[in-house]
Amino acid sequence: MKIKVAIVGGTGYTGVELIRLLSQHPNAQIEYLTSRTEAGKRVEEFFPSLRGVVRDLAFTDLDENNLAKCDVVFFATPHGVAMKHAKFLTENNTKVIDLAADFRLQSLTDFEKWYQLEHTCSDLLKTSVYGLAEINREKIAKADIIGNPGCYPTTAILGLAPIIHAQNQANQALIDPYIIIDAKSGISGAGRQGKLNLIFSETSENFSAYGVAGHRHLPEIEQGVSEILQGKNVQNHEIRFVPHLVPMIRGMFSTIHLRLTDAGQAKDLQKIYDDFYANEAFIDVLPKGVYPDTRSVRGSNRLRIAVQTFDNSPIATILVVQDNLVKGASGQAVQNMNIMFGLDETLGLNVVPVSP
Amino acid sequence: MKIKVAIVGGTGYTGVELIRLLSQHPNAQIEYLTSRTEAGKRVEEFFPSLRGVVRDLAFTDLDENNLAKCDVVFFATPHGVAMKHAKFLTENNTKVIDLAADFRLQSLTDFEKWYQLEHTCSDLLKTSVYGLAEINREKIAKADIIGNPGCYPTTAILGLAPIIHAQNQANQALIDPYIIIDAKSGISGAGRQGKLNLIFSETSENFSAYGVAGHRHLPEIEQGVSEILQGKNVQNHEIRFVPHLVPMIRGMFSTIHLRLTDAGQAKDLQKIYDDFYANEAFIDVLPKGVYPDTRSVRGSNRLRIAVQTFDNSPIATILVVQDNLVKGASGQAVQNMNIMFGLDETLGLNVVPVSP
Amino acid sequence: MKIKVAIVGGTGYTGVELIRLLSQHPNAQIEYLTSRTEAGKRVEEFFPSLRGVVRDLAFTDLDENNLAKCDVVFFATPHGVAMKHAKFLTENNTKVIDLAADFRLQSLTDFEKWYQLEHTCSDLLKTSVYGLAEINREKIAKADIIGNPGCYPTTAILGLAPIIHAQNQANQALIDPYIIIDAKSGISGAGRQGKLNLIFSETSENFSAYGVAGHRHLPEIEQGVSEILQGKNVQNHEIRFVPHLVPMIRGMFSTIHLRLTDAGQAKDLQKIYDDFYANEAFIDVLPKGVYPDTRSVRGSNRLRIAVQTFDNSPIATILVVQDNLVKGASGQAVQNMNIMFGLDETLGLNVVPVSP
Amino acid sequence: MKIKVAIVGGTGYTGVELIRLLSQHPNAQIEYLTSRTEAGKRVEEFFPSLRGVVRDLAFTDLDENNLAKCDVVFFATPHGVAMKHAKFLTENNTKVIDLAADFRLQSLTDFEKWYQLEHTCSDLLKTSVYGLAEINREKIAKADIIGNPGCYPTTAILGLAPIIHAQNQANQALIDPYIIIDAKSGISGAGRQGKLNLIFSETSENFSAYGVAGHRHLPEIEQGVSEILQGKNVQNHEIRFVPHLVPMIRGMFSTIHLRLTDAGQAKDLQKIYDDFYANEAFIDVLPKGVYPDTRSVRGSNRLRIAVQTFDNSPIATILVVQDNLVKGASGQAVQNMNIMFGLDETLGLNVVPVSP
Repeated sequence: MKIKVAIVGGTGYTGVELIRLLSQHPNAQIEYLTSRTEAGKRVEEFFPSLRGVVRDLAFTDLDENNLAKCDVVFFATPHGVAMKHAKFLTENNTKVIDLAADFRLQSLTDFEKWYQLEHTCSDLLKTSVYGLAEINREKIAKADIIGNPGCYPTTAILGLAPIIHAQNQANQALIDPYIIIDAKSGISGAGRQGKLNLIFSETSENFSAYGVAGHRHLPEIEQGVSEILQGKNVQNHEIRFVPHLVPMIRGMFSTIHLRLTDAGQAKDLQKIYDDFYANEAFIDVLPKGVYPDTRSVRGSNRLRIAVQTFDNSPIATILVVQDNLVKGASGQAVQNMNIMFGLDETLGLNVVPVSP
Repeated sequence: MKIKVAIVGGTGYTGVELIRLLSQHPNAQIEYLTSRTEAGKRVEEFFPSLRGVVRDLAFTDLDENNLAKCDVVFFATPHGVAMKHAKFLTENNTKVIDLAADFRLQSLTDFEKWYQLEHTCSDLLKTSVYGLAEINREKIAKADIIGNPGCYPTTAILGLAPIIHAQNQANQALIDPYIIIDAKSGISGAGRQGKLNLIFSETSENFSAYGVAGHRHLPEIEQGVSEILQGKNVQNHEIRFVPHLVPMIRGMFSTIHLRLTDAGQAKDLQKIYDDFYANEAFIDVLPKGVYPDTRSVRGSNRLRIAVQTFDNSPIATILVVQDNLVKGASGQAVQNMNIMFGLDETLGLNVVPVSP
Repeated sequence: MKIKVAIVGGTGYTGVELIRLLSQHPNAQIEYLTSRTEAGKRVEEFFPSLRGVVRDLAFTDLDENNLAKCDVVFFATPHGVAMKHAKFLTENNTKVIDLAADFRLQSLTDFEKWYQLEHTCSDLLKTSVYGLAEINREKIAKADIIGNPGCYPTTAILGLAPIIHAQNQANQALIDPYIIIDAKSGISGAGRQGKLNLIFSETSENFSAYGVAGHRHLPEIEQGVSEILQGKNVQNHEIRFVPHLVPMIRGMFSTIHLRLTDAGQAKDLQKIYDDFYANEAFIDVLPKGVYPDTRSVRGSNRLRIAVQTFDNSPIATILVVQDNLVKGASGQAVQNMNIMFGLDETLGLNVVPVSP
Repeated sequence: MKIKVAIVGGTGYTGVELIRLLSQHPNAQIEYLTSRTEAGKRVEEFFPSLRGVVRDLAFTDLDENNLAKCDVVFFATPHGVAMKHAKFLTENNTKVIDLAADFRLQSLTDFEKWYQLEHTCSDLLKTSVYGLAEINREKIAKADIIGNPGCYPTTAILGLAPIIHAQNQANQALIDPYIIIDAKSGISGAGRQGKLNLIFSETSENFSAYGVAGHRHLPEIEQGVSEILQGKNVQNHEIRFVPHLVPMIRGMFSTIHLRLTDAGQAKDLQKIYDDFYANEAFIDVLPKGVYPDTRSVRGSNRLRIAVQTFDNSPIATILVVQDNLVKGASGQAVQNMNIMFGLDETLGLNVVPVSP
């Protein structure tokens, strides 16, 4: 039995990545692939990399009734599309996984401020689940609507979860309330769009910061951290998030700087991280002294974490890498689908990275 | 039943590519992985991209007796290694696939001139088969030793085979005897070695020609073309081969310029190419007006060909792309293994390319 | 005394390159810099690389009367702009150097076919000069309007001129009439525009051909070659031009393949090229056995040529490199200005390349 | 009158950059250029980018007597070379500018720990001056030996100097004693050497951290910060320095995260930085809301700084960019030479950056 899948908006980078992963998934079948602009075109005409690999699949116009025949619909669309269709689909027993931001932020104020859109189904928002499997696995299993996490928040929240969880358990502060997330992303994170600031001659041989004064992923990180804090000490944690653009296609590297309290310095951070993710298929806590790089996860759903502490210093650094289009987007979406349909979470996701 | 496989020299780019492909192959099992320099180290320590994907595999020293317990040994080594072990292995019913040049050139003179090595098993050379499946499939099926083709020759020979074959059949010249192969390769083609001329600061933002006065792949191309010519008109075909280095990791693009005779101009070249490769799983002749790029085959065993002719001109251009490490090396080696063991030729090789 | 200069359309790559070169030119002063979209903005706000280097220069709207106060106007605009203003400017004793195509092609049919524009001042076209200094220096010195050559034609015509000139002098064919120009360009050649096919994620780690079925620089190359042929044998020379896109910002590499006649094989090609360019400041014919790369001319007005022949073969290969934005565009335009105003041709153009 | 200059070790990236800058310097003349490995070769054979630009200059063996005929010797060598020759040279009235680390660290313990070399002229070390012009201009003017700063320390110290200086003047803490320096460097920072970890296929499409557990530039940053602190509060400032490698040739971007005290939050940081560098030719404090990128300083001696604060947050971020080979190495060395010889500090250094 195969899950019937539709992908809305299959012409962007998260869309083609969903096609790549789902076309190799043993228990899924892509039934519909919609595109406003490319309806009628065969997918391999549009993505030559799929010639001879994915057969007989063409873009169609979006038809809600067709989508509703599927078991799950992935929205690889601009922000604001999924919320138009979620009500109809869930009423027809079709699950929704939105790779855009419609179901990420529970605060309507934040959503409307950062995305400049009015939210049209705030009731569904309340029942939707933030699709970070390592944190919300049980909720995801029962959810009808998933807000698939943003790429930066995935690295930030998963990079912070073990120490904050340990803090909750210790019931005392282990880290200073100021958290620095110095993040770096490959250029595919900006999507498949013809913008001047994304062209090769503007981005190659260049490294820059952006969103320094504020980035829409910050409220999402804050929300994720708050949830892990369980209301205990959220008001005390302030997060500084500075994203940078790296001249490479794929890859995300978040360097998280923390200041440990005396109690925090007394803990074995490496062990805290090892233990927290001991049973996670996709989270790889590296041995002490080994540091991650982005290419080792290229094309893979793995997220790697290294923990660096110093005997004589309160400052700890957590280094987190992922492929922004896989664990940071489409791979995580497939992981969520696996959980929602009771499948082995790793199905279709154990691709060996292409290296070099 | 799984084929027992050994990889000798698993620390280069063709080695790790063999590990990537064979670890996902349903009918193969890597039993031994040897390295002169890394013996004792687990493969995932050396190639972090394999962490959590390939388990329980460590580099060992080369032990001929261990190799002889396998069904097939891949040599992903420098030139000159396979010929030292081929006799022992084949006498012990172990097949040999050499990704270096020991069994590519039938002419000892050429081999010794271009590789500066004395050939130590010229008797075996005679029975070995040049592993270009689309040309030599039947011979490969019966062979004990395969000389896996060089990357440039793969594009050149497969790009020329249809027109030369048509010429043989027509029994008249369709092309002028002068053939221009203007080839471009990503930098991984130079291997995984710490050479000054390969470092990022020397190769990035740069495009250069090399081997202009002569390149060791030229005699291999000449040999391949001669074989297709079947002795009919070899003396008339002169090949000019100019390789260039492109600032990218993977990918090879060969632009082949031909001058058609009047008889050649009267033919439908597109149809000749379409027909010649109609049943080939890995050769994709693009529709008229569609041109290939290297990224569409990244990580894949596909080779794509476009044919460009002009109504009012005798000059035809054949454009050929492949991933130099897959169809140009390790993927083709696995394809040869599949044929040698009577398996479906595409087993383990239908990976969807990672794009972008 | 400084030449008063205006630059129309200073926001593209050829525009900023003109600003870079002219702001360091001892005998030129940029008086006006126009932009349809950025009028009122200071140039350093737009190009941060110019902060602190080029002072007190702002974009203005195009005002013909202001332009006419200058000694020379550079048009770094889309095709079709210069021809609207050339008549007024030249009538007011202001010289025109057009970096677009309005004054490149003498054939109105070719111009209208390839640029899809009607030519509005064909009378001026007849008196304009094609600004390839090494070929047309005397004419440029007297010209009022210069059609600055395209980037590919610069490499092609300068790469072919010595052998064709020698052929004219010998009054017999030295090369076969079929010429292959296999050209490769960095991505800045496509200009500063937000197009999807130019973004980093589409172009990096990729090599592709384009314009295979026809490119607008071909008629310009044919015109340039015809002029050198002096009508003697133009009908016999057919040129095959295939451009490719290289994942780098700057640099152009043209590999020209020729077949020598017996008479051609008897000549010393290296000497022909050495002699032809012996007195040229910007043309560097490399010693035998030395091959060019693009980075060695980055930011420089130099064009380097290597000549490769073989004792036993009629095929010769000419390798030509330049920086497409300098000798292929803005540097050549400044070289033309120097000639038009009777200055030392190298003024402002002897910048040492930045390497690596 | 021209300053007679020698460059020892002219085959690395800082060496060729010195040649580029000094060959265009109006008051300097390169007399000697030494190389252990390339003696006898003309510089343009080794660096083709210099063909036709720098004439009649050849590498020679190192001869102390020749060096002593010069006014100044630049050591663009591995660590440990300058200290062998500094005594002889300064005794002969020849000034020394060392681009390696011999004269950077005043602590012999730190030097020997981090560079694994015994210091052989600790007496000269005491009189040598750390060549950061914006901090030590008066001392540099009188010095015989300059320890030219490391690339990372240049960005770190110049990025921190204004706020620490303001703190000294206010005589109260403006920043929390924990400073995070999250730094990113292009690959040329690792030098011109054939190491496996630097080759294109290992570094392109990759972003990684290195030296996470400790980097030799940290004690240099600590020393520089301590000096600015003037002993007042050094024990309280702990610096966390994490360098990362960016897939680009040139450019360095340091993101410095500070936590302001209440007193610090009351200050106008933008004004502090604007004022501190108001008269510096090479330090460009960007207007509020403008952020730097590395390409805008490529090839230039400029260092750009942006200051980001938030009304409701104590965390401030200072963003610093430079070209690691210019302001981070050879440009700064020429700036030091200008100061030592009483010249205008900007001579030979006002090159317009090449962009794109």
